[in-house]
Amino acid sequence: MAPQDLQDLQDPRGPQEFQGFLEFQEQLLWDHPDLQVLPVLKDLLASRDLLPAVVHLQGQGSAIQVKNDLSGGVLNDWSRITMNPKVFKLHPRSGELEVLVDGTYFIYSQVYYINFTDFASYEVVVDERPFLQCTRSIETGKTNYNTCYTAGVCLLKARQKIAVKMVHADISINMSKHTTFFGAIRLGEAPAS
Amino acid sequence: MAPQDLQDLQDPRGPQEFQGFLEFQEQLLWDHPDLQVLPVLKDLLASRDLLPAVVHLQGQGSAIQVKNDLSGGVLNDWSRITMNPKVFKLHPRSGELEVLVDGTYFIYSQVYYINFTDFASYEVVVDERPFLQCTRSIETGKTNYNTCYTAGVCLLKARQKIAVKMVHADISINMSKHTTFFGAIRLGEAPAS
Amino acid sequence: MAPQDLQDLQDPRGPQEFQGFLEFQEQLLWDHPDLQVLPVLKDLLASRDLLPAVVHLQGQGSAIQVKNDLSGGVLNDWSRITMNPKVFKLHPRSGELEVLVDGTYFIYSQVYYINFTDFASYEVVVDERPFLQCTRSIETGKTNYNTCYTAGVCLLKARQKIAVKMVHADISINMSKHTTFFGAIRLGEAPAS
Repeated sequence: MAPQDLQDLQDPRGPQEFQGFLEFQEQLLWDHPDLQVLPVLKDLLASRDLLPAVVHLQGQGSAIQVKNDLSGGVLNDWSRITMNPKVFKLHPRSGELEVLVDGTYFIYSQVYYINFTDFASYEVVVDERPFLQCTRSIETGKTNYNTCYTAGVCLLKARQKIAVKMVHADISINMSKHTTFFGAIRLGEAPAS
Repeated sequence: MAPQDLQDLQDPRGPQEFQGFLEFQEQLLWDHPDLQVLPVLKDLLASRDLLPAVVHLQGQGSAIQVKNDLSGGVLNDWSRITMNPKVFKLHPRSGELEVLVDGTYFIYSQVYYINFTDFASYEVVVDERPFLQCTRSIETGKTNYNTCYTAGVCLLKARQKIAVKMVHADISINMSKHTTFFGAIRLGEAPAS
Repeated sequence: MAPQDLQDLQDPRGPQEFQGFLEFQEQLLWDHPDLQVLPVLKDLLASRDLLPAVVHLQGQGSAIQVKNDLSGGVLNDWSRITMNPKVFKLHPRSGELEVLVDGTYFIYSQVYYINFTDFASYEVVVDERPFLQCTRSIETGKTNYNTCYTAGVCLLKARQKIAVKMVHADISINMSKHTTFFGAIRLGEAPAS
């Protein structure tokens, strides 16, 4: 296939054909190292392939009681709704979400507290260190139903792990899929330090 | 205009001139199909033109009582603050926000509950199916003022519609523009499945 | 260095080498104005260099009482965790975060109310005008611990300033770093108006 072929390509006309078109272009580029500016183009294409890398995990549906025997308080009953496997890896047993590439990430989570005494709190942790905290309190002895959402931007290195961790025991939460969830977006490269 | 002209272009020196510069470049590219790597460049430019596609809708200012006669509980009193019309279309009567292109989206919303009995909840729905839920409860008989924010990442196909839907009747909410809002960001292509 | 050198470049094999590779490529491009499509490539690279521009500010750790003497109620005890200095500038005394380039931004914040009478509210302000509001209320006389998160998309011009401003006095908030924070993401260019 000659470089000339590049000119014969149809332009993409709809978003549906876009991905296939790109892959074909990319293949042509790799096959023709004699084209002068191709390394830069390859690079731009490679960079874009990582974007947007997202993950959205949902609770699996059951109400659970956070007990002292819960392993470190980390929620682990997640269902993968969407996940880019080049960038994210879920460890189902521990509930930890590992990032596979360095970058700037936006991390978000929500937990649905359905019964607690006085005070309910969870943390989004990075390598077991707190990064964000989400807290509700109520009058003693009252039943309470409250979703608690938090989110923020964080620089992460490959192999770092994020998780959602309850701070206190004796809280009931509902892991229903629309109320308790956990996700992240890779926004791009980490800044050169 | 000869390809040589490409060399004579000034480099963009400030963000203000950036968009016009790009459009000029893009025109040049389309006018010179003999330049070898242009399909890829056109493609990268086209891809970038869709980013960032955002929408931010605000409540129109009045307090409303969610009654049983509210059409399905969907909030529809939105004012367009910013909206990319290539990607989003608001249906003012139904309150639904249609996406016009496939992609990976971040959807967010906030509702300001100003009076409710026991329990207040709304859902972000996609084609009328729940995606995210935001809930507050209080002691019976007390007045309550609470904003409720939720957000998450979702893959959407062109023609899908998102909306903010109250789950229960007999709740008063305040559609003031800073307290009740609804928006989305198109993060990029949907992953090849 | 001849244009031929472009062909000899190693392809980047890992995210770690990626940034350096890009910088080298970019330098080559600037050194060879005779390559035909380079203005466009330069432009694409420059555009990407601004992405992702993020800032995440955290509270500095102490509980504070919001008094009438607090300068306009604006929180200013922020610690820079990550900040792109080409896009954001923190004014430490006033607590205002200035954006240095036009664009489409996602702004988010969380405040941790730890004691208040009836009603607690803060606003995310843009040039002192409210943009987002986050509100909690409780029964009179009860102690309360509540984080309040809000976020939204906003078009900003260079030199505009965003801040987190308490609406009422006589509220105690905890500026601990995981509970009270403030950040932004530049998503890209502002739409051509």
